[in-house]
Amino acid sequence: MASPVYVINPNSSQTVMAEIDKAVAPLRSAGGPGIVCLSLAEGPPGIQSQRDVDGVVTPILRKAADLEANAGAFVIACFSDPGLHALREQSRRRVFGIAECGVLAALTLGQRFGVIAILPTSIPRHLRYFGAMGVMDRFAADLSISLGVAELSDEDRTLTRMVEVGRTLKDMHGADVLVMGCAGMARYRAALEGAVGIPVVEPTQAAVAMAVGHVRLSQALAF
Amino acid sequence: MASPVYVINPNSSQTVMAEIDKAVAPLRSAGGPGIVCLSLAEGPPGIQSQRDVDGVVTPILRKAADLEANAGAFVIACFSDPGLHALREQSRRRVFGIAECGVLAALTLGQRFGVIAILPTSIPRHLRYFGAMGVMDRFAADLSISLGVAELSDEDRTLTRMVEVGRTLKDMHGADVLVMGCAGMARYRAALEGAVGIPVVEPTQAAVAMAVGHVRLSQALAF
Amino acid sequence: MASPVYVINPNSSQTVMAEIDKAVAPLRSAGGPGIVCLSLAEGPPGIQSQRDVDGVVTPILRKAADLEANAGAFVIACFSDPGLHALREQSRRRVFGIAECGVLAALTLGQRFGVIAILPTSIPRHLRYFGAMGVMDRFAADLSISLGVAELSDEDRTLTRMVEVGRTLKDMHGADVLVMGCAGMARYRAALEGAVGIPVVEPTQAAVAMAVGHVRLSQALAF
Amino acid sequence: MASPVYVINPNSSQTVMAEIDKAVAPLRSAGGPGIVCLSLAEGPPGIQSQRDVDGVVTPILRKAADLEANAGAFVIACFSDPGLHALREQSRRRVFGIAECGVLAALTLGQRFGVIAILPTSIPRHLRYFGAMGVMDRFAADLSISLGVAELSDEDRTLTRMVEVGRTLKDMHGADVLVMGCAGMARYRAALEGAVGIPVVEPTQAAVAMAVGHVRLSQALAF
Amino acid sequence: MASPVYVINPNSSQTVMAEIDKAVAPLRSAGGPGIVCLSLAEGPPGIQSQRDVDGVVTPILRKAADLEANAGAFVIACFSDPGLHALREQSRRRVFGIAECGVLAALTLGQRFGVIAILPTSIPRHLRYFGAMGVMDRFAADLSISLGVAELSDEDRTLTRMVEVGRTLKDMHGADVLVMGCAGMARYRAALEGAVGIPVVEPTQAAVAMAVGHVRLSQALAF
Amino acid sequence: MASPVYVINPNSSQTVMAEIDKAVAPLRSAGGPGIVCLSLAEGPPGIQSQRDVDGVVTPILRKAADLEANAGAFVIACFSDPGLHALREQSRRRVFGIAECGVLAALTLGQRFGVIAILPTSIPRHLRYFGAMGVMDRFAADLSISLGVAELSDEDRTLTRMVEVGRTLKDMHGADVLVMGCAGMARYRAALEGAVGIPVVEPTQAAVAMAVGHVRLSQALAF
Repeated sequence: MASPVYVINPNSSQTVMAEIDKAVAPLRSAGGPGIVCLSLAEGPPGIQSQRDVDGVVTPILRKAADLEANAGAFVIACFSDPGLHALREQSRRRVFGIAECGVLAALTLGQRFGVIAILPTSIPRHLRYFGAMGVMDRFAADLSISLGVAELSDEDRTLTRMVEVGRTLKDMHGADVLVMGCAGMARYRAALEGAVGIPVVEPTQAAVAMAVGHVRLSQALAF
Repeated sequence: MASPVYVINPNSSQTVMAEIDKAVAPLRSAGGPGIVCLSLAEGPPGIQSQRDVDGVVTPILRKAADLEANAGAFVIACFSDPGLHALREQSRRRVFGIAECGVLAALTLGQRFGVIAILPTSIPRHLRYFGAMGVMDRFAADLSISLGVAELSDEDRTLTRMVEVGRTLKDMHGADVLVMGCAGMARYRAALEGAVGIPVVEPTQAAVAMAVGHVRLSQALAF
Repeated sequence: MASPVYVINPNSSQTVMAEIDKAVAPLRSAGGPGIVCLSLAEGPPGIQSQRDVDGVVTPILRKAADLEANAGAFVIACFSDPGLHALREQSRRRVFGIAECGVLAALTLGQRFGVIAILPTSIPRHLRYFGAMGVMDRFAADLSISLGVAELSDEDRTLTRMVEVGRTLKDMHGADVLVMGCAGMARYRAALEGAVGIPVVEPTQAAVAMAVGHVRLSQALAF
Repeated sequence: MASPVYVINPNSSQTVMAEIDKAVAPLRSAGGPGIVCLSLAEGPPGIQSQRDVDGVVTPILRKAADLEANAGAFVIACFSDPGLHALREQSRRRVFGIAECGVLAALTLGQRFGVIAILPTSIPRHLRYFGAMGVMDRFAADLSISLGVAELSDEDRTLTRMVEVGRTLKDMHGADVLVMGCAGMARYRAALEGAVGIPVVEPTQAAVAMAVGHVRLSQALAF
Repeated sequence: MASPVYVINPNSSQTVMAEIDKAVAPLRSAGGPGIVCLSLAEGPPGIQSQRDVDGVVTPILRKAADLEANAGAFVIACFSDPGLHALREQSRRRVFGIAECGVLAALTLGQRFGVIAILPTSIPRHLRYFGAMGVMDRFAADLSISLGVAELSDEDRTLTRMVEVGRTLKDMHGADVLVMGCAGMARYRAALEGAVGIPVVEPTQAAVAMAVGHVRLSQALAF
Repeated sequence: MASPVYVINPNSSQTVMAEIDKAVAPLRSAGGPGIVCLSLAEGPPGIQSQRDVDGVVTPILRKAADLEANAGAFVIACFSDPGLHALREQSRRRVFGIAECGVLAALTLGQRFGVIAILPTSIPRHLRYFGAMGVMDRFAADLSISLGVAELSDEDRTLTRMVEVGRTLKDMHGADVLVMGCAGMARYRAALEGAVGIPVVEPTQAAVAMAVGHVRLSQALAF
């Protein structure tokens, strides 16, 4: 039986974890690796700052160490990919970050990717990351919906803002593919894609799909 | 039942097709999409020049049109990704190229990717492609094993040359991940990785894994 | 007597060919190479998609092979430079593409080039090409006039749209030189330049000028 | 009296701290800001992995919060700039990282900078950082002296290895300026510069110089 | 006693020189190097064209040669950094340019820098320079206030235009740090920063701070 | 009768001017623009430093002003393109630089260009220029033959060194096209190309070919 993919949501929100779990459910298969989503009890309610990003690395590493023996792969399910490289150092399993995989998946769907961030303060952090990834020549823009946590519970408003931002990315900045710049928003993906008219990548799906493929391949013999 | 992923090997070689089929076999699952590998009868024995690349686009498009109704996704299984963008225009299905996916997968495994080409004449073609992908800041080097088709049948010699080139990419050019710059060579992947000591991406596996993930996700409801 | 420059218009339009012929006429000189413009009977009426681009490569190569013995140089007169690298492989003559030469000429006239495309669907194809050329740091934007073939026959409307797009490229995107992103539109060049107030490159002229220079130099002795 | 520059050495080594203190001593002046160097008791003996880097962020933030009221500026004195952006979010003071400042200073001294790392495992981390900084077009190479902690106490051997690596960076990779890729090695700077024959930047000096300048300017009126 | 930093304003304006002198005054310290600002009698009233830039190099070199024996470092105080590399060749002292240092300082304060130019004709010159610096991936935009020399004496109008341009750089182009693209305007820095809400770098201050730090370090023993 | 192309060799060497004149002779045609080569009496014997580059701008501008009324175009025939942008400001004619045109021509002949410099001190100057041109992604390397002026008169030795450097650029740095990094060396071009086996661009020929094409086009009506 294949070892599971562990999807670590580094905040403490059970709601976000449940959304992620629902988003990646179609990637489960009978003979394939399980996909186990979990939150970090020690994590903040949401990861909104560089401090939050850096602060969850140690608990991620600790959690992953506990899971190591049985793990097929790890996915870090926060769009800042906290602890991605630290966990790659620590673990003998392959580690996928949702920002990295989300952007890479977008590169197969359009020539210039736009990113929809929740908060404006996330944007410079994203830009540093895209620079480290070396993909700035494919970058259109990163714009935020600028809604606070409380406002995110208003689904209509959230979708409306995402569509507005998505259209601006497409029409003003030349994006022909969008990446959702956070986890836990898969429920908006199809509607957003329909409204803006260009592909939209949900990053946890992108990362877990790559992780599942990896586990299947690595656990087969001969290659 | 999920529509299959069609993996189109654009040369006419049944041997290459069989190798690809074996390489991607672990990605098949009970409830998941089938993975159907096929060669192009009209294709050349091998794709070695830009002329070969451009020349197979029309037969690829024709073949894909025949398969469209039943297809879940397409994979073009030649490291020059012939017809990738033309098929994306033509088809309502998602289309994956093995060069694109192989390089993107490598970006999750190391900071600078090296490519092992078969022929030296492929290298400028690869460089144009990596430039179009916007990933030159992550590029270490692309070196060829410089073996003719006849010589490739000598497996020991082929692996020996791959290991030599892989070590040069690592030691002289700073590569920390390698991409095999052709299809049909998956049988060398594990040995090469072991000998050079850095991860090696087999590009048909990388592309088919992404395609399978996409089919699973797109055929589920709601996202 | 110098061998001629063959300018291959890869669509079947005699009108476009005649426009190109008129555009490059000033580059003909008594002792210099002739400039022979021709269309491809097998080509589509216009090249509007990646499929069209890839589809004309084989007829271009066949036509060029027929002309090889007598050729001084080749120019491929379509802004997607179809078959450029395949013909470079096949031919012992030098081969110039109008997109490549048009953009390079623009780099001598301004710091950031803008491109005026006919159709919005051409833009990602252009971007891939500029990426492969490695000139994205000099790129301002690529915008389309979005006129269908029928509408292009309305010259006033076409020029009006070109001027609008040219001004947007200059004022909103910082372009200080423009490239016309198609062949056969030389008649608008001067008016466009006058109206927008920055240099405008007509790409067939740019490419044929380089080709003529090359033939003169290569057919002289000693250098 | 000007508020001091706090130089936080995020490892627990008093030796390294003393070396830094000596290196920046010439930047102290009568009327200028004090320069206070301190180590983190909670830090590891040396920062050698991404895990170490991420792990010291929380103690750095805590220490800096304690010092905030009286601080003129902060310098993070580890070549991975741990916590740089998190501290910029937290603090109302300006924050300087020695990797960032060391590389920027190098850009004023040569066209291509080479970096001398201690350990080979640091190199991909450095590359990600230089990518995030957007300076890869100025990057020559990053090579390590590959000495373990115990071996570093052998000063002759350390300098010998630094000179070897520096010469390789200059002769094989075209570097015309070097950056020392760690803190606490200022005592080798002059000898290294003399032996290799190109400028060598000691990064704590580069960062503290900028910090002192900033404090002087910000504490004056009117500008 | 430390040798002074000579700040060469390459135009002939005593007003600009006095402004620079005032801007850098806080960087003077009892035991530190003096900071001596001077204008070039042979310089034009203002440096507004590439011709002006190239034309002042010879007088800058002559003036610097006269000062060489006693100099600790040189700063060239014009945002086109005229003669920067020529003086680096000629002098045994370190030479700082205000454009180079201003942009590098901005890279420590934000992820994307915007530049406020006086004249629109300066912009392509700036872009060439930022390209030579290799920092275009961090570049937001460069926009001008488009005021003539006479209009610059109207301080309210000048500040108003700077604020307008600064806000456009921030809101439309994503700049999160600004660089003042000329010398002699330090008096607007604080007000501009307050009005736009992102950090503003005054480039003579950035350069002189680095120069002072260098002199202090180089005149100390042992490092 | 077409106005001539003025080729300004900014050094005072009649030998270099004569070499340039011979190199571009095949570009003269009966009805075409004349090509007039001239040296600058005020120029140094050779341009070897940034100081030399900057120092010849004023005499170039003066000379060009004298020639303006009758000029069709200008070519600045020194591989540092001194005064290129200043002359573009001053003149109503188009101005071509041999470094710019030589590199751009190389981009049509190979994917990675190598440059053969005379002196090692020219290399950082070249790199700044290629950075300003935005073509570093296509750059292989720039290496010098390191011969002094006296040694250059030994033609065998000069060619031998050029071939050595050309082979290193090809074999070690992946160049597939070479640019001669100085004027006046056209006599070595064919032999160098033959010996190294990849195309070699002589930059005065590249620039004058573009200039002649421009004059022909601009002096025709209607386009």
